[in-house]
Amino acid sequence: MSGLLTDLYELTMAAGFYEAGKSAERATFELSIRRLPKDRKFVIAAGLHKVVDFLLGLSFLEEEVEYLRGLPQFKLVSNGFFDALRKLRFTGDLFAVPEGTPVFAGEPVLTVRAPVIEAQLPETYLLAAVTFESLIATKAARVVDAAGGRPVVEFGTRRAHTAEAGVLGARAAYIGGCLGTSNTLAGFRYGIPVYGTAAHSWVMSFHGETEAFRQLQKLLGEHTIQLIDTYDTLQGARRAAGLGRPLWGVRIDSGEFVSLSRQVRSILDSAGLRDARIMASGDLNEYKIRDLVQAGAPIDSFGVGTELATSFDAPSMGTIYKLVEQDVGGIKRYTLKLSEDKTTLPGAKQIFRFPDRDVLARAEECSSGSEALLRPVILGGRLIEQLPDAHAARRRAAEALRNLPPEPYRVERSRQLEALVEQARRNLA
Amino acid sequence: MSGLLTDLYELTMAAGFYEAGKSAERATFELSIRRLPKDRKFVIAAGLHKVVDFLLGLSFLEEEVEYLRGLPQFKLVSNGFFDALRKLRFTGDLFAVPEGTPVFAGEPVLTVRAPVIEAQLPETYLLAAVTFESLIATKAARVVDAAGGRPVVEFGTRRAHTAEAGVLGARAAYIGGCLGTSNTLAGFRYGIPVYGTAAHSWVMSFHGETEAFRQLQKLLGEHTIQLIDTYDTLQGARRAAGLGRPLWGVRIDSGEFVSLSRQVRSILDSAGLRDARIMASGDLNEYKIRDLVQAGAPIDSFGVGTELATSFDAPSMGTIYKLVEQDVGGIKRYTLKLSEDKTTLPGAKQIFRFPDRDVLARAEECSSGSEALLRPVILGGRLIEQLPDAHAARRRAAEALRNLPPEPYRVERSRQLEALVEQARRNLA
Repeated sequence: MSGLLTDLYELTMAAGFYEAGKSAERATFELSIRRLPKDRKFVIAAGLHKVVDFLLGLSFLEEEVEYLRGLPQFKLVSNGFFDALRKLRFTGDLFAVPEGTPVFAGEPVLTVRAPVIEAQLPETYLLAAVTFESLIATKAARVVDAAGGRPVVEFGTRRAHTAEAGVLGARAAYIGGCLGTSNTLAGFRYGIPVYGTAAHSWVMSFHGETEAFRQLQKLLGEHTIQLIDTYDTLQGARRAAGLGRPLWGVRIDSGEFVSLSRQVRSILDSAGLRDARIMASGDLNEYKIRDLVQAGAPIDSFGVGTELATSFDAPSMGTIYKLVEQDVGGIKRYTLKLSEDKTTLPGAKQIFRFPDRDVLARAEECSSGSEALLRPVILGGRLIEQLPDAHAARRRAAEALRNLPPEPYRVERSRQLEALVEQARRNLA
Repeated sequence: MSGLLTDLYELTMAAGFYEAGKSAERATFELSIRRLPKDRKFVIAAGLHKVVDFLLGLSFLEEEVEYLRGLPQFKLVSNGFFDALRKLRFTGDLFAVPEGTPVFAGEPVLTVRAPVIEAQLPETYLLAAVTFESLIATKAARVVDAAGGRPVVEFGTRRAHTAEAGVLGARAAYIGGCLGTSNTLAGFRYGIPVYGTAAHSWVMSFHGETEAFRQLQKLLGEHTIQLIDTYDTLQGARRAAGLGRPLWGVRIDSGEFVSLSRQVRSILDSAGLRDARIMASGDLNEYKIRDLVQAGAPIDSFGVGTELATSFDAPSMGTIYKLVEQDVGGIKRYTLKLSEDKTTLPGAKQIFRFPDRDVLARAEECSSGSEALLRPVILGGRLIEQLPDAHAARRRAAEALRNLPPEPYRVERSRQLEALVEQARRNLA
């Protein structure tokens, strides 16, 4: 992928590292969750597949190099740097938490170790990929939890921040526990189950709702979900019921769901369609779904769009990508940042996950009785094995969510890490 | 672009239209702003360039058609439909409000008129493109307004919902009035000015802040913006001031900006650097910027990231794409929807913008003394002229924002439109 897919300062810094003779220095950066999204107690890690795509594809086209050379910020930069960009490939290492893993505040989700320019440039892309996909996977987990076992389908592509966000969001929502998505390209690309039947325009395009319903039934057979709220929901329910089987069920997309779903259930039951299901959609989120479930609304599945595709109540979170370690000709240097409220911990790390707590440790430490969450993914610029796919990530998330320890989640630091923090602070003073 | 970049139901409906013998019917859909984003009184229209890309590029690869054919929802669909998909191109018309135009609640921003399948399929993509880019352009206009003439640079790619959203968001923020962006690919693709200097990792990677500052100055000359808050902001300011010129200025990325900026200003002035500027960044939005400006903080420019790239306080809005008109063998039929709180108005429309109000009228109406906002863009599948670029859209937005009528903004309906609404309601009853 284009090396220009980044903030300009990554490129001016790259030039600066080159000009300062630091190209050969190796740097270790960590991407961590500094602050959880609002009202979240954990985040489901996602986005690693795009991180890998970016690192393995990182390169510059000739016209991109020429574009940079023409910018005022590069007028003092020597030709050697532009030649280096032309040849640039990622030759470093990537360690990462597998997709579908719940992580807590202060924990790193990936580590990049590479010659400093290769490690610096990906910052912007990596932050965007991990932040967005993790937000959506996390939101999905909340919605699915609220639905208490009723399937949730992701319907949000039309509200996603670009069509590409719709595709990647659909995948992340699936990892977070959704049954599937309406996004067809996500189905094609990632093998995610796709769902959907007809919109209001379908109903409106026929002479009369009954004719529209009949045509849909002919088309979809047992997969038919009649959308019954275009004109009047109960009248729509009666018309759908009148046509009988084949019918998966009906969808209500507006109105007061508790009373409507009860009345619709009764209409379906009276017509002998006890197996026909009711799906609800329209501005739903985890709070509204929990209320519907608690009120005993006879809704069998939920379609969730806007709130899920944008992580509406928490559309961002405080992720950071920080230099934690340098290797200058074999001599290690551990770095940290002391800005107000924005301090970072030095040194490459590992997360050891025990049943009741996480321990943040130095990367070199060992620990028994725990799972080491940060695993090698790319070594020396090569992918060491195929990443687990979205299905595997979804299974991992589901299992981890069943086994979360009791709150508050504990993230402790190992003694060796504490000692390194002290040492790095002293060196800075 | 791939025809799979859509919700599955657009494709099942397309199959249904085919099977019901409706392929030759022409349909008119309108994409409108049903509800403005929270706390907004208008929206700056953006995203049209991607709408055009999608419509002109709409097609299906053979393997995409095969994928659909294998889905359970398509098992009753005949071969003819899949052949039609293989040949599908957009042959219809697109009318749209130019990018950079402020629009109000209830107004259409584009109209698609085409054979029903071609008009239905783009719904999902068109909604995503227009909704997202308009949200960002609108947020940018608010932030720029709050800054009261001080330049605002968009810094948010790392928080955007995918890297592509970063690029398109940068363009939209520029249309909304930002001076430029840190997104280098947006600069390369769209000719938008790019800005940026160095990050905390730059400072941390050298032995001492002064050495980092010296190296940056050597690299960037008069474009140097020293980031002074890595360890201690005032100490950083003194170190930057100590190095003197060349220097554009300094950037503060954390802490209490009012008092810090005053102290930093005083340090720079004492060093004879009255022309050195102060940029502030870090979790800024229109509210915080307005407070800083009102408090008289000596900040010369603002970098805005997360809030701008995600439209953080309003990450979505109620846009709709609805069937308003059909043409079946030359006979027109006007459609509307009566779902609770979600009614739509029938018939293709025009917006006539007068100095003090907008009049929503039927597309065929004429009006003098006003600007007709919906203009032809694609006719018979062909782009009739090159779209205005981001620079032209930015100028259009700036001029329109200077000339907004006094609030509340009035959107009236023409008598002919009112008559059509009545007629369509009667036909439905």
